[in-house]
Amino acid sequence: MSPDVIALASDHGGVELKALLKDELLKAGHGVLDLGTEGPQSVDYPDFAEAMAEAIRSGSAGRGVLICGTGIGISIAANRYPFIRAALVSDVTTARLARSHNDANVLVLGGRTMGAEVAKDCLKIFLETPFEGGRHAGRVLKMGQART
Amino acid sequence: MSPDVIALASDHGGVELKALLKDELLKAGHGVLDLGTEGPQSVDYPDFAEAMAEAIRSGSAGRGVLICGTGIGISIAANRYPFIRAALVSDVTTARLARSHNDANVLVLGGRTMGAEVAKDCLKIFLETPFEGGRHAGRVLKMGQART
Repeated sequence: MSPDVIALASDHGGVELKALLKDELLKAGHGVLDLGTEGPQSVDYPDFAEAMAEAIRSGSAGRGVLICGTGIGISIAANRYPFIRAALVSDVTTARLARSHNDANVLVLGGRTMGAEVAKDCLKIFLETPFEGGRHAGRVLKMGQART
Repeated sequence: MSPDVIALASDHGGVELKALLKDELLKAGHGVLDLGTEGPQSVDYPDFAEAMAEAIRSGSAGRGVLICGTGIGISIAANRYPFIRAALVSDVTTARLARSHNDANVLVLGGRTMGAEVAKDCLKIFLETPFEGGRHAGRVLKMGQART
């Protein structure tokens, strides 16, 4: 188990933002697991959501960051897995609430919709904010059920 | 099957916005299925995500709108179901791309993070925008796989 390692994955719409956030994480002393993609070649975002889910399932990483053009497709795909709570956020407020209310373990950003400075702030707040528990704990537990 | 019926569901954080969007849909001539909640009493958002999934699974509604405080929790819970593509959007641009790129069948909004006028515009664009298909179709198909 490597709970302190943060995994990063994106499709081609998130390559630049992923590289930037990877640098931020390394500078801050975090362990980083980069699951790709690299470069501008068109790839399918569900494949990178799957890679993230497997990294968290196996314990190779404790938390993750997913990026596609808007974050929508890759967040839908990641949330297919009942142990993933992938939060698509648009600002530091939603990044904070994703942790305090939803105990999100994956931060999702839009590589073509969010600017670099906003993304860096979202990542920082996401990593710093603890889960509140209390009345939110039962809801998080309900989200852990497999559905078909 | 009632593909033209639009289902609405929210937790207590989305009651006011749900009522407002319900009025908009009825004024525009849409069939509406209101799955609750009503009133300010605290409820669990996964229960309303489940109600939405069952309404779409059964064909009682073809599309839906889900609302919780931020939209994060209810979008995670809804996307547990492989036939739901629930898109948490923050503006008309992401509402449009959720349809054209991701073929989203459920629009997700934050009742405590999004203003009423933005929400009305998002709903309008969501309902009007067709799926582009093409290179996006294979990715949408991949998202339809059940995961555990």
